[in-house]
Amino acid sequence: MEKGSLLYEGKAKQIYATDQEDVILVSYKDSATAFNGEKKAQLEGKGRLNNEISSLIFLKLKELNIPSHFIEQISDHEQLVKHVSIIPLEVVTRNAAAGSLAKRFGFEEGEAFDQPIVEFYFKDDELGDPLLTEDHIQMLKVASKEEVAEMKKQALAINEALLSLFANMEIDLIDFKVEFGKDKHGAILLADEISPDTCRLWDKKTNRKLDKDIFRRDLGDLIGAYKEVLNRLGGNQHV
Amino acid sequence: MEKGSLLYEGKAKQIYATDQEDVILVSYKDSATAFNGEKKAQLEGKGRLNNEISSLIFLKLKELNIPSHFIEQISDHEQLVKHVSIIPLEVVTRNAAAGSLAKRFGFEEGEAFDQPIVEFYFKDDELGDPLLTEDHIQMLKVASKEEVAEMKKQALAINEALLSLFANMEIDLIDFKVEFGKDKHGAILLADEISPDTCRLWDKKTNRKLDKDIFRRDLGDLIGAYKEVLNRLGGNQHV
Repeated sequence: MEKGSLLYEGKAKQIYATDQEDVILVSYKDSATAFNGEKKAQLEGKGRLNNEISSLIFLKLKELNIPSHFIEQISDHEQLVKHVSIIPLEVVTRNAAAGSLAKRFGFEEGEAFDQPIVEFYFKDDELGDPLLTEDHIQMLKVASKEEVAEMKKQALAINEALLSLFANMEIDLIDFKVEFGKDKHGAILLADEISPDTCRLWDKKTNRKLDKDIFRRDLGDLIGAYKEVLNRLGGNQHV
Repeated sequence: MEKGSLLYEGKAKQIYATDQEDVILVSYKDSATAFNGEKKAQLEGKGRLNNEISSLIFLKLKELNIPSHFIEQISDHEQLVKHVSIIPLEVVTRNAAAGSLAKRFGFEEGEAFDQPIVEFYFKDDELGDPLLTEDHIQMLKVASKEEVAEMKKQALAINEALLSLFANMEIDLIDFKVEFGKDKHGAILLADEISPDTCRLWDKKTNRKLDKDIFRRDLGDLIGAYKEVLNRLGGNQHV
């Protein structure tokens, strides 16, 4: 597998072509960003940790019959994934109130919902990633009604799998964000990453945050927390 | 019909009990408010105009087989309506981009949609009336899924009726807000008011605004515009 040209650089990852048309290489950066890029930092080790964690989670989801774009981890910072066309939606699934939802509705953080809630946000930095209703998704022609229903169904199935995976690690999954892509046949596939950058993870006993809120809210040692998540996942202890 | 005690005072209307349990009296005030009450003014004649306009529109909707809480206009400022339990949702139907939606998605005002869009906002001044997805409505236990579907269906039928009513008056209906209530049998019924306070109405030929945006944006003679709407509706010329 040859690493080709840089196709795209995001806030936390670089995407490279490879010598196979259907395969791209994702390189995780050591940068942390929040609030639509307004807050930034370089954190040595973060790229490697997220690459390891996301690779392990995608592997574990596969064992639970949840497919994704993930192929394999090929180095500390890099993984190979199937080339899909990313749908410009951030799909957020919430088991308890936190972050923007808690603020929006005046809930205490951690207040659990009767049913998980799935939200769609428009991936558009200029517009500030606005919340979308299903009518808005049709208006923007971002996805069909059937595709929205399929993403919601997959998000809820991923949530069930992640809830049980994290519960075994003594972690409460408060919420998480995923993105989906379409493969060349039009099938919708889980893409992007699943890591403490994209999940809210609270230690079951202490409620200690083990996720990017440590960075957003200046709560201390982000790298230590991400290492803790990797360790509990049974990952490489030497990172 | 005896006017009873004041039950509730909102920004634009007062609600009184009557000597009939199922009937309440709505008195339209001469006040204009915008931006969650931050901008306020007294505008003589506004209450009377909105009472006349809303009464005429509810009557015309009834002719088109669209029921509402409206019973009859009983004075310049007052109308009788059926007592319903108001569902705390603002249901906004949009035929073209304007206001908060245009801002949210970077659309030009007046850009028409392929299909009308129905949005639900949580009536809560403290929270700033946040936009809701259908999952949020379930989370807040404000209405059942079936009730949401029924409100959406009714909103779209009201839109069809209003589009044709206003088209006959050489007016484009850009968007409008309604509220629904439940009667004692649990049936969902159109409530509140339909007036230039709750609709965006643009003159078909000139695009001149004939609605509350005149007040929101300091565009001139609001009372003159509301009189124009009443005249085109065939209402009382003497107000």
